[in-house]
Amino acid sequence: MNSRPQVSSRGASAPFIAMEVMREAAMLSMQGGAHGKRIIQLAVGQPSTGAPRLVREAAARALEKSRLGYTDSLGILKLRERIAKHYDEHYGQSVSPDRIIVTSGSSGGFVLAFLACFEAGARVAIAEPCYPAYRNILKSLGLEVVGIPVGPETRWNLTPDLIADAERKHGRIAGVLVASPGNPTGTMLDATHLAALTASCEAEGRWFISDEIYHRISYGMAEATALASSPDAIVINSFSKYYSMTGWRLGWLIAPQRMMVPLDRLAQNLFISPAALSQEAAIAAFDASEELDANVAVYAANRELLLAELPKAGFDTFAPADGAFYLYADISRFLRADGNADSTEFCKRMLREIGVALTPGYDFDTERGRQTVRFSFSGATADMAEAAERIKSWLG
Amino acid sequence: MNSRPQVSSRGASAPFIAMEVMREAAMLSMQGGAHGKRIIQLAVGQPSTGAPRLVREAAARALEKSRLGYTDSLGILKLRERIAKHYDEHYGQSVSPDRIIVTSGSSGGFVLAFLACFEAGARVAIAEPCYPAYRNILKSLGLEVVGIPVGPETRWNLTPDLIADAERKHGRIAGVLVASPGNPTGTMLDATHLAALTASCEAEGRWFISDEIYHRISYGMAEATALASSPDAIVINSFSKYYSMTGWRLGWLIAPQRMMVPLDRLAQNLFISPAALSQEAAIAAFDASEELDANVAVYAANRELLLAELPKAGFDTFAPADGAFYLYADISRFLRADGNADSTEFCKRMLREIGVALTPGYDFDTERGRQTVRFSFSGATADMAEAAERIKSWLG
Repeated sequence: MNSRPQVSSRGASAPFIAMEVMREAAMLSMQGGAHGKRIIQLAVGQPSTGAPRLVREAAARALEKSRLGYTDSLGILKLRERIAKHYDEHYGQSVSPDRIIVTSGSSGGFVLAFLACFEAGARVAIAEPCYPAYRNILKSLGLEVVGIPVGPETRWNLTPDLIADAERKHGRIAGVLVASPGNPTGTMLDATHLAALTASCEAEGRWFISDEIYHRISYGMAEATALASSPDAIVINSFSKYYSMTGWRLGWLIAPQRMMVPLDRLAQNLFISPAALSQEAAIAAFDASEELDANVAVYAANRELLLAELPKAGFDTFAPADGAFYLYADISRFLRADGNADSTEFCKRMLREIGVALTPGYDFDTERGRQTVRFSFSGATADMAEAAERIKSWLG
Repeated sequence: MNSRPQVSSRGASAPFIAMEVMREAAMLSMQGGAHGKRIIQLAVGQPSTGAPRLVREAAARALEKSRLGYTDSLGILKLRERIAKHYDEHYGQSVSPDRIIVTSGSSGGFVLAFLACFEAGARVAIAEPCYPAYRNILKSLGLEVVGIPVGPETRWNLTPDLIADAERKHGRIAGVLVASPGNPTGTMLDATHLAALTASCEAEGRWFISDEIYHRISYGMAEATALASSPDAIVINSFSKYYSMTGWRLGWLIAPQRMMVPLDRLAQNLFISPAALSQEAAIAAFDASEELDANVAVYAANRELLLAELPKAGFDTFAPADGAFYLYADISRFLRADGNADSTEFCKRMLREIGVALTPGYDFDTERGRQTVRFSFSGATADMAEAAERIKSWLG
């Protein structure tokens, strides 16, 4: 008799610590908070707002009128056309709807892109720190992750030289995945730097995958889409961040024409189609800029507040917070000062003692994350002020 | 200079022909039909009904009241509890909500199960004919598919002997995936036969994955869940078929306790969470049996009608249509009679000449599918009658 079958090594993936902090914070909330203080959530990477009014109204109409069956696996044509129009309106870029596939969040887009672009065992370069699911999805799909540490020297971004160095060290790199604005840093690439990256990938025959999920949430710096500099770039975006539709699980992917049949077939088999109601409703999201820009104005105020107050608590080093709704902060002085072993212990103590939930840096950077934390400032401004006060007296 | 990066071999997956027939049928419909006849859709595997009234009402309430952000990656607890209660009510099986994970359709469940259970390169046995996405998902995740041809000799089902034979021929088989009722056959396994399969898998240390997506759509034969015969079985189900919620992209997976942490982590990374609105609404689906059983009564009438009429058109051999809403028919006599090369040509001609869309068998059985077609009878009874009339005069 054989033993019971066990979990595969692919199933033994790293936890997504932000999700686990969210779960612990939710549990503490249900128990009435920490030492009588309600829990303030600065750990989770999603807007605190719901979908804009126009989207909810469109959803209510679709709920009454549409059968909501499977859609075309590429997505509803009207939504793909509306996304194409958005590229014209917002970036001055002409993109055919034929090159756009609607996905189940950016998550669905990553799975499709990784499978369509890379053979099993291929090497894909990512910056560290980065969104933890990159590493975990790549690994679970049998790809080799080449994490390239970045920092202030390159403004927390990859460069053609860093990629070439990594190739010399690790062997052929088949693709590069870049996010601007980044998560956890919020740091952006300017158009020139982005074009240098896409050009080097074109010259080396590498795939360039551009995660543009935090576009339209930025604080003065101009945002560039990889589409503008490379016809071969694969662009991934989502309705979850600027459009404030996380739980609707909807995103999109733009790829060169020759990839559309393979992407379509993978999507048919892996997903059948994205959620129909979300698709019908999302068409209206592009007309909701007034409400959505007001959300961004709140993020901007929150960012100002934290960048003014946190240094008073002793936080002295942040990655450039050009966009998104994150501050990525160094905490090495607090590890030295009061004996916390690492960022996880620091965050656990902060959550339990003063009810403020941050994300430990390990999620984003498996080594240097020991001494970093991520603040998410997507919540209410009053919560940011209260969190800053609590942190100042806790660390003071 | 390197050449432009190309699609990977994993991206070059087989088309899901049913989806492509659906697309061609939709195009003909937009053009006004085939020779003036409106298109009758017997190709697509989904109910023609929308979600039940109670689900739509619950969705409307959630749309007003809930923020619809990311949910717990395992799904909303209330929904997991309601699914657990369903196992008690419907099967007399006690299942802890801790063992239930809500997924993005059964599609999401397959991806999670395959990654959590199998190392890259592992062999997974499936019956042929079967749901085409099994083969395509398994391949794209780097698994080796062992297709075992089945037919009337074993009532279109796998048996422990067939699996043992396949292992002798191909090498170690790490898991077995079985559907009852099956797609495209509609054929079911009885409890004894299912228990023999789960017992043989337990004895050999293989994973047993039970696709129960067509449960509650059956025509007299008692349905059995693999949970009843094996604590180690992985059960995959969905709100798409009986619950008539295809476009809502929601399903569930039940696994042994030791798999829940790995499944949760994979789900966090690959999907973040299933759609929030779908989850809130689906809680009501289990109270909508009156409306849903009325749908099944329509399927039963459609099945009776086709099983009475199609033989008059010359269709003489069907797999036992115990459940689901499919008839899987042999068409070899039509290939001989009027020179159609194969089922694809037969279906294309039928669609273009008389406006009836069927699915060619290749989707389900890459070899023997040459001489089979699938009728989906999930539509209106009047459409079944009209389709049968058209087919009778076309083949007559």
